[in-house]
Amino acid sequence: MLPELRTPYLLFLGGESRLTFAKTASGIAQWCPERVAGQLRFPGNTLDLGVMDLTVAEAVDAGVGSLVIGVAPVGGAIGAEWVDVLLEAATAGVDIVNGLHHRLENVPGLSAAAAASGSALVNVRVPPLELPVGDGRKRSGRRLLTVGTDCAAGKKYTALSLSRALVARGVNATFRATGQTGIMIAGAGIPIDSVPGDFISGAAETISPDNTPDHWDVIEGQGSLFNASYAGVSLGLLHGSQPDAIVVCHEAGKTHIDSCHDLRLPSLAECIDLNLACARLTNPSVRCVGISINTSGLKASERHAYLQRMQQDIGLPCIDPILQGCEAIVEELLEVPPTEVGAA
Amino acid sequence: MLPELRTPYLLFLGGESRLTFAKTASGIAQWCPERVAGQLRFPGNTLDLGVMDLTVAEAVDAGVGSLVIGVAPVGGAIGAEWVDVLLEAATAGVDIVNGLHHRLENVPGLSAAAAASGSALVNVRVPPLELPVGDGRKRSGRRLLTVGTDCAAGKKYTALSLSRALVARGVNATFRATGQTGIMIAGAGIPIDSVPGDFISGAAETISPDNTPDHWDVIEGQGSLFNASYAGVSLGLLHGSQPDAIVVCHEAGKTHIDSCHDLRLPSLAECIDLNLACARLTNPSVRCVGISINTSGLKASERHAYLQRMQQDIGLPCIDPILQGCEAIVEELLEVPPTEVGAA
Repeated sequence: MLPELRTPYLLFLGGESRLTFAKTASGIAQWCPERVAGQLRFPGNTLDLGVMDLTVAEAVDAGVGSLVIGVAPVGGAIGAEWVDVLLEAATAGVDIVNGLHHRLENVPGLSAAAAASGSALVNVRVPPLELPVGDGRKRSGRRLLTVGTDCAAGKKYTALSLSRALVARGVNATFRATGQTGIMIAGAGIPIDSVPGDFISGAAETISPDNTPDHWDVIEGQGSLFNASYAGVSLGLLHGSQPDAIVVCHEAGKTHIDSCHDLRLPSLAECIDLNLACARLTNPSVRCVGISINTSGLKASERHAYLQRMQQDIGLPCIDPILQGCEAIVEELLEVPPTEVGAA
Repeated sequence: MLPELRTPYLLFLGGESRLTFAKTASGIAQWCPERVAGQLRFPGNTLDLGVMDLTVAEAVDAGVGSLVIGVAPVGGAIGAEWVDVLLEAATAGVDIVNGLHHRLENVPGLSAAAAASGSALVNVRVPPLELPVGDGRKRSGRRLLTVGTDCAAGKKYTALSLSRALVARGVNATFRATGQTGIMIAGAGIPIDSVPGDFISGAAETISPDNTPDHWDVIEGQGSLFNASYAGVSLGLLHGSQPDAIVVCHEAGKTHIDSCHDLRLPSLAECIDLNLACARLTNPSVRCVGISINTSGLKASERHAYLQRMQQDIGLPCIDPILQGCEAIVEELLEVPPTEVGAA
């Protein structure tokens, strides 16, 4: 498994002023402000996550554990203009945490600086080397997986929101991360989309190990069974997670798959049916407990009516987690009988 | 893509006398004897592939291009007792071809020996670094993919048998390899089970590129949608292959999935239905053209009756390719109308 990430974090933004390219930093600041000491912006950068501005020296004084690269340029390369800051931090004993495809070891001098100070270079996108092949063994404890009609449908947001709502209700629950931003938020996890094919379901089994019977793992989904670019990852994650419950995530108004030529989005019913049919392989008692829909693309006046209409059509709670929170799905989830769960 | 493998091959058996651990060598000797110059066995090894015994020196004189490691010990490590032979071959300018998980570069001295002579060290199990993400674009030409009720169901054998039968009928057809032995037989391909999850369908798209409208790619399947260890690979391969036709492979009498706890094998009808449902995502006109069954576990007197009964139940050609060849499936395949194929 990934080493536990050292907190608190210094969120590195560099010169990136567009929020859409700083989703990692903003996700961390939103979901785990208690892990964040501050942000490091280059002079003139107006993007502000609402946390303290710190230089590397100030961050060291504040006891920062890791500098987290919080931006993701197109192409996934480490910016040449970041190198001085990374070297300064590694030299000062601060771990560097990187979710980009490019590896920190390729930055000239960085490995030597880290070795000299004893700091760690953590490439979150690189999966652990020793992963098992999945074996489908039924594990103790309960599991919920978010799935989607496509990528970027709110699977991470929904899983985080659900796990927070469960914990707030006194339920024993843990968010399980499967992507780089989720891993930085949770401080642990496996980047499932980088795992070699033969080990995808085994990695998923590793992410949500045996637990107490009352415990819920709330697992961050990836891709979609209907996205022809990434469906293999989605299926391996579904099988390895052996969920007792799934939540389907969707973006209102979207009609086609992101990365694929002319591929139409499935209906919510199609998406529920195929996910349940495939999930039954490792958990015959799986059920869908709700639909989480990003309605931000609709007119404000139409959002609630749209959700109500969907809920009537599907017969399950349909919520926008940003608009309404996840309580309705939590209610449905807590109806899942414990006797049925666990009987495989 | 993998570099074209240099022929002819010297098949290295070492001290391995059990055919079941020498399937790579025996598969190559069976399917492409024209690529094989001879075998190299340690003294006392009685396993015989029916080809000439050659020392490394004799192989060099015979113009051998590659020494192929034709055995796969449990654990996938390169035997310490092989090192002298590997070094001798690499020093003499012979390429070394390895399908094990362990890499040739880890054999002390081998990289230096190869560099000095200009020979190549080819780890067939290592996928190319630069693979695209799949985009689902409809490609020209036609495609058949073998799928299975489980692993080890005859998907490679059936694909090879079908491609040979098609070529023998004068059809423009190519076997496309997705596993290490298939790659050594074909001399090209991608080990799809080692590709990182995000690139599985993209690798599959790369394996069967655009072709002339009359051309059939016959693609070696991997795993099974019903094997919870490997189904992610199977789904990505299915989507990326965008097959016009599938052939379901099965082992008669098998009741449970190999690598998974208590998971029952699907029925042939279940296997056809789920594969077609998933395949329609990238090729709505996909159809199943036959069933290929390994009946070697049945009593000799029952094999033909079993196949006939299956054929009546399913309503498609059901053949054992070792017993009968693949002609019946080829007949069905050639009925696939070209106008329908290609209409996505």
